[in-house]
Amino acid sequence: MTVRGLDLVDDVIGELSFTQMLYFLCGGRMPTIAETKILDACLVTLMEHGWTPSSLITRLMIDSVPQESQVAIASGLLSLGSVFAGTSEGCAEILKAGIDAGGDLQAYCDHVVASYRALRKPIPGFGHPLHKPDDPRTIKLISTGRLYRVGGQYIDLLLMLSNTVDAAAGKHVTINATGAIGALLLEIGLAPGVMRGLAVVSRSGGLIGHIVEERETHAARHIWQLAEENIPYEAPSKD
Amino acid sequence: MTVRGLDLVDDVIGELSFTQMLYFLCGGRMPTIAETKILDACLVTLMEHGWTPSSLITRLMIDSVPQESQVAIASGLLSLGSVFAGTSEGCAEILKAGIDAGGDLQAYCDHVVASYRALRKPIPGFGHPLHKPDDPRTIKLISTGRLYRVGGQYIDLLLMLSNTVDAAAGKHVTINATGAIGALLLEIGLAPGVMRGLAVVSRSGGLIGHIVEERETHAARHIWQLAEENIPYEAPSKD
Amino acid sequence: MTVRGLDLVDDVIGELSFTQMLYFLCGGRMPTIAETKILDACLVTLMEHGWTPSSLITRLMIDSVPQESQVAIASGLLSLGSVFAGTSEGCAEILKAGIDAGGDLQAYCDHVVASYRALRKPIPGFGHPLHKPDDPRTIKLISTGRLYRVGGQYIDLLLMLSNTVDAAAGKHVTINATGAIGALLLEIGLAPGVMRGLAVVSRSGGLIGHIVEERETHAARHIWQLAEENIPYEAPSKD
Amino acid sequence: MTVRGLDLVDDVIGELSFTQMLYFLCGGRMPTIAETKILDACLVTLMEHGWTPSSLITRLMIDSVPQESQVAIASGLLSLGSVFAGTSEGCAEILKAGIDAGGDLQAYCDHVVASYRALRKPIPGFGHPLHKPDDPRTIKLISTGRLYRVGGQYIDLLLMLSNTVDAAAGKHVTINATGAIGALLLEIGLAPGVMRGLAVVSRSGGLIGHIVEERETHAARHIWQLAEENIPYEAPSKD
Repeated sequence: MTVRGLDLVDDVIGELSFTQMLYFLCGGRMPTIAETKILDACLVTLMEHGWTPSSLITRLMIDSVPQESQVAIASGLLSLGSVFAGTSEGCAEILKAGIDAGGDLQAYCDHVVASYRALRKPIPGFGHPLHKPDDPRTIKLISTGRLYRVGGQYIDLLLMLSNTVDAAAGKHVTINATGAIGALLLEIGLAPGVMRGLAVVSRSGGLIGHIVEERETHAARHIWQLAEENIPYEAPSKD
Repeated sequence: MTVRGLDLVDDVIGELSFTQMLYFLCGGRMPTIAETKILDACLVTLMEHGWTPSSLITRLMIDSVPQESQVAIASGLLSLGSVFAGTSEGCAEILKAGIDAGGDLQAYCDHVVASYRALRKPIPGFGHPLHKPDDPRTIKLISTGRLYRVGGQYIDLLLMLSNTVDAAAGKHVTINATGAIGALLLEIGLAPGVMRGLAVVSRSGGLIGHIVEERETHAARHIWQLAEENIPYEAPSKD
Repeated sequence: MTVRGLDLVDDVIGELSFTQMLYFLCGGRMPTIAETKILDACLVTLMEHGWTPSSLITRLMIDSVPQESQVAIASGLLSLGSVFAGTSEGCAEILKAGIDAGGDLQAYCDHVVASYRALRKPIPGFGHPLHKPDDPRTIKLISTGRLYRVGGQYIDLLLMLSNTVDAAAGKHVTINATGAIGALLLEIGLAPGVMRGLAVVSRSGGLIGHIVEERETHAARHIWQLAEENIPYEAPSKD
Repeated sequence: MTVRGLDLVDDVIGELSFTQMLYFLCGGRMPTIAETKILDACLVTLMEHGWTPSSLITRLMIDSVPQESQVAIASGLLSLGSVFAGTSEGCAEILKAGIDAGGDLQAYCDHVVASYRALRKPIPGFGHPLHKPDDPRTIKLISTGRLYRVGGQYIDLLLMLSNTVDAAAGKHVTINATGAIGALLLEIGLAPGVMRGLAVVSRSGGLIGHIVEERETHAARHIWQLAEENIPYEAPSKD
């Protein structure tokens, strides 16, 4: 039994942590200690966010399909799309394209900000409804990256982009946690294409906690009752 | 292009209704007009139930993954398990086993009722929290079955079982709509093993209506807010 | 019990077909007989396509989660995205935008064809790997639309667009079945936003047939074995 | 921002590994170093198994819904049911019931073996089609448990049960990896009810690797073609 060249029994079980193996499968090589620390920091940030679409769906599903808990977890994970978890990927794509192009980074930031302003769309990784002026998770994530000295060019570009965003907006716009995660995962050599998958891994752990709690508290029936009592269902079906 | 011996162009498109083709794929032969009417009656009964786990989940999902509406519908459908949609199947299995055994049906009903009472479990197809003493859908479904003269032995056994349940309980217990559907689908020659699938087909139609409405009313955000404001989560973590 | 103003017992069960009720929930009004016939024609076209990603996934899932057949069906339905079922929606959006704009339709077709050629992308609803020069389903669908005299402006625009595509390509490009379905559903008053949902309803019926068959033939284990024997996996790990 | 009493910024990000936080959310307290090592050992065992229903489904899905990789991962995870991943849970329930009962453990093992033999069902955690006489993962997992001195009563009971199974069968029956994982997770204080969730977390990491590889190798189209060429689809729909 081998996994991409590693012997499962001799090299993996009892030898590697889950985070090391996760990096190995996503990045194609064994991570350093610093890279492992950074991946851990990103993963624990996204695990548990209280009531979100993913946890609400998982709660409703475990009440409906109690014998197959994988269905409840997978259902919640389906919701981790471009609205609520895809912004790490989007932010990372912007940062990676800038570094890959290799030119004047300030000019690149100007171009990115102008493009999104023209589309009247937020730049992935920027803005947060609650955390203003700064998201404390972002600060801790970036300082963790600095502590472990994992590169720095993507973080630097994220901060340059932030200054450009602020100048164009005439005010400070929060760098949210998914923006910082996008930069950090690039720093440790992971591609934008695996980042949503990493959010899935992370949140799957948090959703187990919701299943444990749901079996005690039966919140799903309460959610259902709240909807019945508060949200009228009678709208005409005119599209 | 053929589908189980039918030519898709010559025999199916423009020639058969969806319900006829559904019967053909599930039952292995073309239905009579009466069988089609009964299948239609069962399908329309389950399409739309307002706020249920399936519609709540579909609403939350279309808000999270707006570009892929099949994900929202499929997520809602995952919840149609043994708690909220599997009772037709369960009731039908009881009725079919009784008819297949071919002995004294009253003795069979006595045995079924005694077995479930010993387990302190409800018999699938019996009981309803709201519709008492009778579920008006059940009455209409059974009268529709009688109108189209589709056999009758499974309906008769369901009613005998109902009398036995009542005698054991010392009061009238509702035959719910899924019980009547289980009996009617047996009458038209469909097996218990396809009944949950038919509930999926039926509800998938209703969930399209919820997606249309969600795009206008944005109930998902309201559901989320209600949960946040009303349901304590052991460790709330504001996102 | 009412559903959008209809009494479930008096107006729906035993009175309406599934297809009528489906139109009612998606279109917001009761369909005519002709509209019902057209919706049926579109639904039966997409039900059963033999081996496709949706049927392969449903087969694999019912082998893994045999007790919850809704999981197998819903899993297959998740695959009905922009690659394999979203082209009706895309084609309909093009046709609707042209009619809504109300100007010179030939100029509109020229613009559409030029835009897609510039992007080197196929126009939704056009092209088919097998059905050349014409898709017989398309011919039957359009003739069914003509037979039931449901409008005609969207079909006419589809055919004008087809001529424009052919002139630009220098050869005849097939109008595939999803293109014809997009036009027909517009003719009967349904919006592009419900069309993927209708594909879900349709295919859900076909997938029940796959579950019935899988329980007899156990194709899932055969698929698995074929993959193991034929497709190298970079680091095979025997389980 | 707190998570069950921990401050997300001060206590979690940059401070805890994913595995520590996973234990905290599933077990309700912070793990020791030894417990973390054991949880890691169990998680890495299940991550990547090459071609399985979960990886086949994820491959087919990312080909159909390429923009939403969480859908492909979640679809694969839905298949982790009682057939292919639920045996840790089942084995752990048997072991826990024996220890909780507190009586003569050999008598308990005799009772368990006799019960399953009467039902002609395999005991969860026992038997493997390939790994005979022993599963090398099981040996490594148990030795890892011994190395970190995490209790031992559940491992001891698993081995006693194994001897009883062998005596009844008249030959040695493999203890498979999921059996050892069930015992080890009990040793570190985790409940059977979270074990399937832990399998989900583990496999979600492995499925990211399949998505990365699928984008390069396009195995999904090959799987589809193999099915079309090798598996007849024409069976009658008699249930």
